[in-house]
Amino acid sequence: MSAAGPRVFELRLRVRYAETDGMRIVHHANYPVYFEEARSELSREAGLPYAMMEAEGYAMAVAEINIRYLRPAIYDQELVVRTTVQKVGSRGVTFGYDVLLADTDVLIATGSSKHVLVDQSGNPTRFPPAWLEQLRALSA
Amino acid sequence: MSAAGPRVFELRLRVRYAETDGMRIVHHANYPVYFEEARSELSREAGLPYAMMEAEGYAMAVAEINIRYLRPAIYDQELVVRTTVQKVGSRGVTFGYDVLLADTDVLIATGSSKHVLVDQSGNPTRFPPAWLEQLRALSA
Amino acid sequence: MSAAGPRVFELRLRVRYAETDGMRIVHHANYPVYFEEARSELSREAGLPYAMMEAEGYAMAVAEINIRYLRPAIYDQELVVRTTVQKVGSRGVTFGYDVLLADTDVLIATGSSKHVLVDQSGNPTRFPPAWLEQLRALSA
Amino acid sequence: MSAAGPRVFELRLRVRYAETDGMRIVHHANYPVYFEEARSELSREAGLPYAMMEAEGYAMAVAEINIRYLRPAIYDQELVVRTTVQKVGSRGVTFGYDVLLADTDVLIATGSSKHVLVDQSGNPTRFPPAWLEQLRALSA
Repeated sequence: MSAAGPRVFELRLRVRYAETDGMRIVHHANYPVYFEEARSELSREAGLPYAMMEAEGYAMAVAEINIRYLRPAIYDQELVVRTTVQKVGSRGVTFGYDVLLADTDVLIATGSSKHVLVDQSGNPTRFPPAWLEQLRALSA
Repeated sequence: MSAAGPRVFELRLRVRYAETDGMRIVHHANYPVYFEEARSELSREAGLPYAMMEAEGYAMAVAEINIRYLRPAIYDQELVVRTTVQKVGSRGVTFGYDVLLADTDVLIATGSSKHVLVDQSGNPTRFPPAWLEQLRALSA
Repeated sequence: MSAAGPRVFELRLRVRYAETDGMRIVHHANYPVYFEEARSELSREAGLPYAMMEAEGYAMAVAEINIRYLRPAIYDQELVVRTTVQKVGSRGVTFGYDVLLADTDVLIATGSSKHVLVDQSGNPTRFPPAWLEQLRALSA
Repeated sequence: MSAAGPRVFELRLRVRYAETDGMRIVHHANYPVYFEEARSELSREAGLPYAMMEAEGYAMAVAEINIRYLRPAIYDQELVVRTTVQKVGSRGVTFGYDVLLADTDVLIATGSSKHVLVDQSGNPTRFPPAWLEQLRALSA
């Protein structure tokens, strides 16, 4: 990558009615789900689909999640989640997220998640070298 | 069982804020979750816990679900789910549910669910005889 | 519409990881959410968006839901929900749904939902004549 | 309160099957829901029920959430959420959470959430003095 920093992936989604709560806004527990969906999209676009990682006996356990909620989102709005690979280690990776109102610069929420690669027994393990290289290229 | 019909199991639960939607009522997709929780409770009380069934390599696939919504429930209300075993076959079972406002006769929703016993490959299979007998005793 | 029956609306969606359960398949309580999303899409395409109905003080309370689960769906699969308006009354409407594996004829689930139009106090009310006509045209 | 610090509230809950995911563990997006349920319980026990706050036209918007996931929880396990009021300001409050396996010292997750009091238009507002005093007593 260039001096412009890490590659930015975008997921576009529409707020579901079931995701709203009694305040008529997206319930805050849906944002980790949006983030996860954004990681799925990133993994597909980057050629390292999470479904394939699972098929090969790996999983990315969530170790940490941090979210700041700036503005409410409501039913039927289109949102964009911009995701980057923030940090890559031999056994884990950190992603960063910005959730925006689609086609605007209005920031709805921002956050990050830290993951640890685990094997089928749930034990931390190292990324296969080819995957590690691929992830590092995304964060460069 | 006596002429009084099948044994009735009760699960008491409190409506979570996250379960409400933009209409300020419990979103209708939470009722299958309440039903499932009620089956879990039934299975524990009946001495045939679902966690144990899973540990022995079985699962109860959901084949059908039917729900009638009579009155809305709101945040913080206590509900009671009354569950019965309606029908038992060698490879499946049907449960019936009434969701009431706790400590009242106010009926919130009513429904049923039909399940098929499957093995670890997802293929329909027969209940072990002891389980079948136990389930039949509940529905008698 | 022609002799071919009611107009069929399609929603394409991808299974989210959060929607899977311990059986590694889509948890059955997500199908009512898929159906709802399909109704949202139908309402937008038909020019009678649900968000607008809510803005005008109406809501479509769910009165009944029935689902048959035929085959499991798994993480990352693309699904298509085919939705039709099955029946229209002056105070309510029934929708039908087929959930298929995208780009195949593999039927995952099928179902219906019955709705009652309510005003802001939650009381059943009649569709404004223009809406009724629009809904009837879809079901013809 | 004594030198022992803030009052600790406990919510006991059982993991629902619907809360597990394809890794057969509680999906990480359920923890914000557990935290919220724990706040509901705290608010009831402290005599300042959230349902009452809403009835008086206030809401506690979630401004920030941070979670560290230490060990997986699985279906049917009983968990305890220990909640404290960490910080109280005139317009907001921060809660802290420890999620433990019930009847053990096994820590499953730990986290915090920051909230801003808003009025019915969603604008930040000040706690009524009596509420502020009550919250401060809990955090002392």
